[in-house]
Amino acid sequence: MYRDRIRLASLQDKVMSAEQAAGLIQDGMTVGMSGFTRAGDAKAVPFALARRAETDPLQITLITGASLGNDVDKVLAESHVLARRLPFQSDATLREKINNGEVMFIDQHLGETAELLRSGQIAPVDVAVIEACAITESGGIVPTTSVGNSASFAMQASKVIVEINMNMPAGLEGLHDVALPVARPYRQPIPLIAVEQRIGLPYIPVDPAKIAAIVITQRDDSPSNASAPDDDTRHIARHLIDLLVKEVEAGRLPSSLQPLQAGIGTIANAVLHGLADSPFHDLTMYSEVLQDSTIALIDAGKLRFASASSMTLSAPVYQKVLGDIERYKSRIVLRPQEISNHPEVIRRLGLITINTALECDIYGNVNSTHVGGTHMMNGIGGSGDFARNASLSVFVTKSVAKGGKISSIVPMVSHVDNAEHDVDILVTEHGLADLRGLAPRERARAIIANCVDPSYRGPLQDYFDRACARGGQTPHLLEEAFAMHLRYRDTGTMLPAPAVVPVRDAALLTAVEPLAA
Amino acid sequence: MYRDRIRLASLQDKVMSAEQAAGLIQDGMTVGMSGFTRAGDAKAVPFALARRAETDPLQITLITGASLGNDVDKVLAESHVLARRLPFQSDATLREKINNGEVMFIDQHLGETAELLRSGQIAPVDVAVIEACAITESGGIVPTTSVGNSASFAMQASKVIVEINMNMPAGLEGLHDVALPVARPYRQPIPLIAVEQRIGLPYIPVDPAKIAAIVITQRDDSPSNASAPDDDTRHIARHLIDLLVKEVEAGRLPSSLQPLQAGIGTIANAVLHGLADSPFHDLTMYSEVLQDSTIALIDAGKLRFASASSMTLSAPVYQKVLGDIERYKSRIVLRPQEISNHPEVIRRLGLITINTALECDIYGNVNSTHVGGTHMMNGIGGSGDFARNASLSVFVTKSVAKGGKISSIVPMVSHVDNAEHDVDILVTEHGLADLRGLAPRERARAIIANCVDPSYRGPLQDYFDRACARGGQTPHLLEEAFAMHLRYRDTGTMLPAPAVVPVRDAALLTAVEPLAA
Repeated sequence: MYRDRIRLASLQDKVMSAEQAAGLIQDGMTVGMSGFTRAGDAKAVPFALARRAETDPLQITLITGASLGNDVDKVLAESHVLARRLPFQSDATLREKINNGEVMFIDQHLGETAELLRSGQIAPVDVAVIEACAITESGGIVPTTSVGNSASFAMQASKVIVEINMNMPAGLEGLHDVALPVARPYRQPIPLIAVEQRIGLPYIPVDPAKIAAIVITQRDDSPSNASAPDDDTRHIARHLIDLLVKEVEAGRLPSSLQPLQAGIGTIANAVLHGLADSPFHDLTMYSEVLQDSTIALIDAGKLRFASASSMTLSAPVYQKVLGDIERYKSRIVLRPQEISNHPEVIRRLGLITINTALECDIYGNVNSTHVGGTHMMNGIGGSGDFARNASLSVFVTKSVAKGGKISSIVPMVSHVDNAEHDVDILVTEHGLADLRGLAPRERARAIIANCVDPSYRGPLQDYFDRACARGGQTPHLLEEAFAMHLRYRDTGTMLPAPAVVPVRDAALLTAVEPLAA
Repeated sequence: MYRDRIRLASLQDKVMSAEQAAGLIQDGMTVGMSGFTRAGDAKAVPFALARRAETDPLQITLITGASLGNDVDKVLAESHVLARRLPFQSDATLREKINNGEVMFIDQHLGETAELLRSGQIAPVDVAVIEACAITESGGIVPTTSVGNSASFAMQASKVIVEINMNMPAGLEGLHDVALPVARPYRQPIPLIAVEQRIGLPYIPVDPAKIAAIVITQRDDSPSNASAPDDDTRHIARHLIDLLVKEVEAGRLPSSLQPLQAGIGTIANAVLHGLADSPFHDLTMYSEVLQDSTIALIDAGKLRFASASSMTLSAPVYQKVLGDIERYKSRIVLRPQEISNHPEVIRRLGLITINTALECDIYGNVNSTHVGGTHMMNGIGGSGDFARNASLSVFVTKSVAKGGKISSIVPMVSHVDNAEHDVDILVTEHGLADLRGLAPRERARAIIANCVDPSYRGPLQDYFDRACARGGQTPHLLEEAFAMHLRYRDTGTMLPAPAVVPVRDAALLTAVEPLAA
């Protein structure tokens, strides 16, 4: 019974339909919704809002933790509710509206949004919509599978709508650790010095008078859409593990390594899976999202503790974790993304970070967001928060895409999210380039030799050689820097056209020679 | 007498010539030298090393705090002593050797070098050469006008050479605050919560047994080479102050603002000078370098306290400060650059950062380092440390260079050091673009309207309009993205060639018309 989940009796009469709750949201408002990488998103109010917009058009600024599941972004985009969207998304329909200029998308470091709200540098949240598994005796909101920016939204909004999701076990309570930096100039150090440490409350503290509506839902998170490991991702994992073994042997890392971060998605997930067969033990994670691989490593006894801001799992692993939540709660904590992604904590703990590059150049600059330099894929997410402050910043990518027609490594990336200063290691299925302490020309040699697909090695080496002849710290031929991108656009492949094979058969020579004679 | 400056008696017999001390440095070694933005650099041993190399060739990796004065980098480069150089430089001769590939230059965030050394990710310092004004009773080294990376070098090196500079007043003792993060996993929060707070020792603690040589010198720091404010920089200052006034009025900043950081150089220095005529008071600085403007603001009663890693002043201001050091010591502290530039402290204190862009694009991506996308100017310095973690990240630049032949604002920067995520405000003499909370297309409109020189506004607007027609979150025409750069290279100006003016005078029409008829 949902009444057990609302432990502050005075809030029981705030239960209403999603349509009624959505009525609190007005045209022009900024709305902060829970949800981080498909986990713990609001599942009723956004749909009610979209239905209402069919007859009563309205537009809002929507801020979330990160991406949403359950097609929320799709439905809101289709009903033209979204005027502005930040700080991340991963929906195909919304992406199209972003790229055609219909929706203004602000691509932000995921650790910064809360700070921008707190300091008033972006418009404040009017209404917060937060998925919860319970409301405590004090009116505290207990989140579900993500914390994201929910605490910041709920604390800033004048009205809070709580969606209590009965599909989420009440036992999730105790999984979360909610603490946020205070406003300046009274800010103290964040006291977190170990991944398992708890520094806050197990719920989001809010003035109960602000809880204006409670909506009861019963719908699962969208499951993770990461693909299973394949041969390429297994090779990537193996190259990286080989490096980490050498780092341990050299005394630069302990055999428990340092806390791991892995970006969302197939490759980073696969790399973590690969650690199950590694010699390391008592591993820890300090990441923004936990994927299936985290649970596998915990179950295998390899991973001692994992801290993140959300859990995004496949359906069977979801079921397993939610069904045995008491056991997993001793190994996992979920925090606000301002803490999971905070430069202060990342630098202090000395993370080994593993993030996926959309494309990378021969000098190690990384494009994490823009297809062809112009079209937004998802967003920078936490890659910048983590890569900049990591102890060891690793980027992974398959060397080619589209069956070899795209090289993930190009002369110059068409958009820079993470500059070469923040990229220590680059890994593809072909090998690993250890870029630490190298100058750009040395970085290029290491990347071309180790990471590039053989079919592109010649063209990239040729570009680099001709660029070096012109000099510079970072040699380039500006007039050719994007030639591979343009060739793909115009011909469907980045590969150079095959050289014209001279026709040398005897018949033709015979036919031609008399004319030339 | 220099003997008063060596208070640990057992070290008195370590005094030797620069030539003898330089003998401790061997081919292939990594040498860490004091010096940060021309301040507090070693002034004898590097020259002895260069002289020795004439007959006894050797090559070293040289790590410093930042740039050196007194032509040290020039002389070392000319004598081919430098195989590798990090993390920053600003010397014309060395720059040429970097750009022709003779010296491998590793351009690093200035706050990260000490961390990379501590974690063993770059080769360790064998010998440290540190300028000091004294050695304490315990063998502690008291730095002079900069701390830089000197503490990290001295603590890691097996041999330390101290240059005691008799031109530096003994009264500098007490100016410095030396504290560094410890190795992981025992790292605690950095306890700094206010710019004036002292958290360490007034000297660099080293095992006296490691002090292998003491060299006595008597030579001044090279004075600052920043130019005086001009009309353009005064306009830039005025635009920025107008914004800050509005931020205070809106309640987003207190009337003492938040701690200020300003990059080295003419424009940032001029902006700070402009604050003397502002309504703000009790200002503070948390920067990497203090310039003349800092002293002017202290003298004007505007600036309450300044924290940095070095002081780089013009000759007369140097004289004034060193001659009255007891008074200035109550207003200034110098720290290791790992602390002055630490993400943890910068984020906590909420800095307003002011850094100079070499070039910027219509979306607000900043090139801080590479002329024409290829040739190194100085290095990223602290701009990334500060801009990423700032509360308000401002970049300043004059709108044009080379008498209008170069627009500082281009369609796409030819090299990215600070990506648009980290650029809140862009200011030129023409105006200010407030980019907070804007999507890329909105950023472009704000930058073109407010910051671009009128002679380039048409071409940039045209580029942007045609790019938008193709769509994308960040519209670009990849085949034209560097057309302005290439035009400058090929014709000496980024300005488009004047359109051919149709000849329409009557005589010509008369002459031509019969033929056409």
